[in-house]
Amino acid sequence: MRNVRLEIAYDGSRFFGWQRQEGFPSVQEALEDAYRCLTGDTVVVHGAGRTDTGVHALRQVAHLHVETKLDDDRLRHALNAHVAPGVVVRRLETCRDDFHARFDARGKRYMYLVATTRFRPPFGEKLMHWCEQPLDLVRMRAAADAFVGEHDFSALASAGSPRKSNVRRIRSLHFLARRERFAFVVEGDGFLYNMVRTIAGTLLDVGRGKLEPRAVHEILASRDRKLAGPTAPPEGLYLVSVLYDESVFPRRDRGPRGAPGVFQY
Amino acid sequence: MRNVRLEIAYDGSRFFGWQRQEGFPSVQEALEDAYRCLTGDTVVVHGAGRTDTGVHALRQVAHLHVETKLDDDRLRHALNAHVAPGVVVRRLETCRDDFHARFDARGKRYMYLVATTRFRPPFGEKLMHWCEQPLDLVRMRAAADAFVGEHDFSALASAGSPRKSNVRRIRSLHFLARRERFAFVVEGDGFLYNMVRTIAGTLLDVGRGKLEPRAVHEILASRDRKLAGPTAPPEGLYLVSVLYDESVFPRRDRGPRGAPGVFQY
Repeated sequence: MRNVRLEIAYDGSRFFGWQRQEGFPSVQEALEDAYRCLTGDTVVVHGAGRTDTGVHALRQVAHLHVETKLDDDRLRHALNAHVAPGVVVRRLETCRDDFHARFDARGKRYMYLVATTRFRPPFGEKLMHWCEQPLDLVRMRAAADAFVGEHDFSALASAGSPRKSNVRRIRSLHFLARRERFAFVVEGDGFLYNMVRTIAGTLLDVGRGKLEPRAVHEILASRDRKLAGPTAPPEGLYLVSVLYDESVFPRRDRGPRGAPGVFQY
Repeated sequence: MRNVRLEIAYDGSRFFGWQRQEGFPSVQEALEDAYRCLTGDTVVVHGAGRTDTGVHALRQVAHLHVETKLDDDRLRHALNAHVAPGVVVRRLETCRDDFHARFDARGKRYMYLVATTRFRPPFGEKLMHWCEQPLDLVRMRAAADAFVGEHDFSALASAGSPRKSNVRRIRSLHFLARRERFAFVVEGDGFLYNMVRTIAGTLLDVGRGKLEPRAVHEILASRDRKLAGPTAPPEGLYLVSVLYDESVFPRRDRGPRGAPGVFQY
């Protein structure tokens, strides 16, 4: 029996989210089924976090306990050969027995990708959010700074499972822009339910002129979800990476790649 | 009654090719249906050329005769609002009554897009051809030069409708490469059935070491389809643009854009 850690990319438009649910294909199920196909064994794949229907991942992290003679490299290849299309195991390695993808995570990085083309994108329309209206990126950048730091994010979270505290720390929020696409990348030690999508919806309202950049401070202070922008649609959202202590998992490659479109973040 | 010229992008993986066929959704049908939805009128949309199932277009050209009070700009918007997802009318303009998208075409430009990632791409797998084996781009570039110019391309065409001559002129064939993707773009005054896909299959065989670059001369001279490489799959192929006399249609924008992936050609 050994514990293996996976880094997984997936196209969220092909699944009903990460978590296994009876009757709805999920990424977790796709991986568990691939392993059972391969070995006959039933396993549980523990993800670092759930992603909702339509939300993509470039490097979701998961762990599972396996009993197989296949070494890491062969196991990764075999899983990739059996897993449903739209899922790829990018990295697989044997790790400490007590590594836990969720409990050991120290933070997450998400990207929200927006197309600002004049026309609805004919390619990959489920891989980005299309905004028809013109957006003012200067205003959006100004508003974004207000989110950075430690705040009570009650105004930017959907009602989900009750939590002890809605205080979270955003370490950075920056923009990438190229031609008619842009993305913002946000890193934090944790995120409330729908928090990144509500930040996206709020920033888009600022970009459209519906909200002033300085309003973000008031929205945060109000803790009132009704003041923030709408929850932006899932197709623009990517879980870019899950962050662990470097000592536990030295990064082999700098920066996760493989995002569709112009951003190979 | 006026004649309008369209430039259309489409995701070929969502259609059974360009041409209308009973019971199989096609791009032509999607456009004709959109126009009928809008006006109640039945029209025929004439394309510059057919594309097969799975083959994409960045700027396919078509014309149709319409009787509507909508001006060009509104007609384009209205068509885009009604047409099936995966099709976008990028440009629409009233043109000479006798303009014919197919008969007036002076050439075409195609792109073949290849992903050379270590793993099957989780995103947009139907928008490019994935090659697992390493490819030697230097060899491929050397082989590509042999296709340029006027040749009898019998060795590189699938048996299709009989034609007077299999001589065609390729004006240019060049490569674009970035990170783990590359494409070649080929421009010619005309192409035989499956010719670009067979050129792609032959170049990929050269890249893999199955064929020598100099073999291309012999393959062309043989006129024997069995000597060339296989017909590469449709998902990598894009009709980039259709070329007309500049005097007839001055280009408003330089170079068609909007290809998925790293190539915004």
